[in-house]
Amino acid sequence: MDKMREDARYIVDRAIETVLPERAVAKALEGLGLRGKIFMLAIGKAAWRMASSARERLGETLKTGVVITKYGHSFGDIPGIEVFEAGHPLPDENTLKATARALEMLQGEEYDSVLFLVSGGGSSLFELPAEGVTLKELKDINNQLLRSGASITEINTIRKRLSKVKGGRLTRMVAPAQVYSLVLSDVLGDRLDSIASGPAYPDSSTVNEALSIVEKYSLNLSPAMIDAIKGETPNKLLNVQTEIVGSVGKVCEAAGVFAGELGYEPLILTTTLDCEAREAGKLLSAIAREEKHDRPVRRPCAIILGGETVVLVKGEGKGGRNQELALSFAISAQGLTNTVLVSVGTDGTDGPTDAAGAIVDGQSRARMIDAGIDPDLYLIDNDSYNALKSSGDLLLTGPTGTNVNDLIVLLCR
Amino acid sequence: MDKMREDARYIVDRAIETVLPERAVAKALEGLGLRGKIFMLAIGKAAWRMASSARERLGETLKTGVVITKYGHSFGDIPGIEVFEAGHPLPDENTLKATARALEMLQGEEYDSVLFLVSGGGSSLFELPAEGVTLKELKDINNQLLRSGASITEINTIRKRLSKVKGGRLTRMVAPAQVYSLVLSDVLGDRLDSIASGPAYPDSSTVNEALSIVEKYSLNLSPAMIDAIKGETPNKLLNVQTEIVGSVGKVCEAAGVFAGELGYEPLILTTTLDCEAREAGKLLSAIAREEKHDRPVRRPCAIILGGETVVLVKGEGKGGRNQELALSFAISAQGLTNTVLVSVGTDGTDGPTDAAGAIVDGQSRARMIDAGIDPDLYLIDNDSYNALKSSGDLLLTGPTGTNVNDLIVLLCR
Repeated sequence: MDKMREDARYIVDRAIETVLPERAVAKALEGLGLRGKIFMLAIGKAAWRMASSARERLGETLKTGVVITKYGHSFGDIPGIEVFEAGHPLPDENTLKATARALEMLQGEEYDSVLFLVSGGGSSLFELPAEGVTLKELKDINNQLLRSGASITEINTIRKRLSKVKGGRLTRMVAPAQVYSLVLSDVLGDRLDSIASGPAYPDSSTVNEALSIVEKYSLNLSPAMIDAIKGETPNKLLNVQTEIVGSVGKVCEAAGVFAGELGYEPLILTTTLDCEAREAGKLLSAIAREEKHDRPVRRPCAIILGGETVVLVKGEGKGGRNQELALSFAISAQGLTNTVLVSVGTDGTDGPTDAAGAIVDGQSRARMIDAGIDPDLYLIDNDSYNALKSSGDLLLTGPTGTNVNDLIVLLCR
Repeated sequence: MDKMREDARYIVDRAIETVLPERAVAKALEGLGLRGKIFMLAIGKAAWRMASSARERLGETLKTGVVITKYGHSFGDIPGIEVFEAGHPLPDENTLKATARALEMLQGEEYDSVLFLVSGGGSSLFELPAEGVTLKELKDINNQLLRSGASITEINTIRKRLSKVKGGRLTRMVAPAQVYSLVLSDVLGDRLDSIASGPAYPDSSTVNEALSIVEKYSLNLSPAMIDAIKGETPNKLLNVQTEIVGSVGKVCEAAGVFAGELGYEPLILTTTLDCEAREAGKLLSAIAREEKHDRPVRRPCAIILGGETVVLVKGEGKGGRNQELALSFAISAQGLTNTVLVSVGTDGTDGPTDAAGAIVDGQSRARMIDAGIDPDLYLIDNDSYNALKSSGDLLLTGPTGTNVNDLIVLLCR
């Protein structure tokens, strides 16, 4: 069991390494063959790290550029690059200031290509409202949309039109320069037009659709906003090339490779897990129980899932979705030998705790009981952190600098 | 899509056929090579059908026997066999009367082997309390145990000792005759000592364990009951041979074979599914969404699960666990092409409805909306039946005569 716990830790650690901003950008640049003068624009929570890695790799060919990241997420100067910090999860005045500066440079400088580095949080960090629209109005319409019950697709259709940079407008603006967009995705399913509201990506929605959404939800808009809504977004862009350099899918695939190296037959079940954490844990224990039958695939095997589960908070306890999934698994899998599960947030955090997740096995529940803890009651109280602490099952990694959602690996012998 | 819906229906229909009592018993008898004079004892909801099939197959070598089934579950005379109906889910006076008659015959008749046919419900249909214990006392201790929070293993440890037939005592009683026990299992994981409280199967619990359970839960017992608790159950039995002739595992394996014949790569995920129905549906939709990546296995594939999910009833609607799972899947899988899911109770019923389950696809949600139904609201109201009725997705089979829990098949192209 100890060996399997080590294996589990090794697999997730190595898999997360492959989606660290530095590694992901460096690897992608190798294959990209960028030439000529390059302008770099990096947005999102991992922008500084992605940009820093690109600068190191590209050296002097990278003439200039802009980094816009969240407060506290930049770590010093990058030669030739202007670094800004701004608001997240909501855009603020610094968002607008930094974005305006980026556009100014994009319109003033000479370059052949734009290296566009995108990570989670980009939508609120890179924004400039359409002509005549204020930041306050933008926030107001956002609230209206969220309250209306509109779908995320409908919300994006409106948002993109109220922005000077979203919905492919950035790419149109810099034509004929070629945009190379490298994306570290934190969106399940990696919809490129959704990540950071797709500044570089074509938009398939139409003005008519936008207007019918305004009518459907009786949105209250200023005349300038109505004008903006009537502006068409580019539905085709020839000067952009996009590559997902890190995503939950990539981290699952990497976990599969490392599991395979250790002799576990990998099986990637899904990369868009989004059900309740504790029910996912229960279902995974039901898979682990097939040991007599060598199912679902020949054992030893590694069942791999990626995504972002949800927790229905009803209790007063402390925990996160990965810890809740792990505690639920530990309860249902009690007594199983040769089964270890790890569930971890790839950013190194899980809920408001210092843990990234947990590694549990068929003896975890017994260890909790030995420690005087009733695991069922702790689960009901959403107190997965303290239950897992008592059994020595917490997984602590510290912040990793990346975020491609959660990785779950179930090892079965 | 229509072809895949047909395939799904074909797979579950054929798979359920393999676990019908008649088929399961007939097939098992082929390999058993029973000789000499045979006494047959059949207990459970499918007892009459199992017994009738055995009588047909064995003919005159089957001298005599007893069938004890639930009220309304016998369908006429079986030559040479005495047929009783009794109480289920709680034993009644007819249970005791029928069981006493069976024991009387087992002690009076001459035979070389006992063919013991067991199906779901057997625990309440085959029971005779230990010496000096009344049916009323038996019910009382059952209530005490259920209220105490005792585990099912603890409950069984007590139950077996208060019975003249459970915990392997039937087998011990008929020694040296050989007992051939054919089991149609409705217990997840097929624990042979749990099915019908294991009349033919050795019991691993001890008197000391039983006494500590009495103490742990402060059970209130009569002197006769305390005497009974102190009686040891057989922990080893040499004169019994047990075969699971039908179970959720068997029905899953059969579904895999039929899916394979139609060209779908089968993957049995679990045969002990027991999480919330709607979360299982959601997780399965997350698996279906991997279509771009040809995961979890090369497509076309059939993901197969067996078990018994649970429904948290909060609404006023009509449905069952299979329908709830299917509706939840239909909502999350909306828009997916080339994905069909069937979830069905192998007994042909699902909750208090006339449906056995449902067959849904990526267009089911759209069909509901076309019919003026909001699927999300219907799911919140636990009204899966009416939502699925509106989209034409209900699966109606009528009672099948068997019960090995639920079968779920997800077809992905």
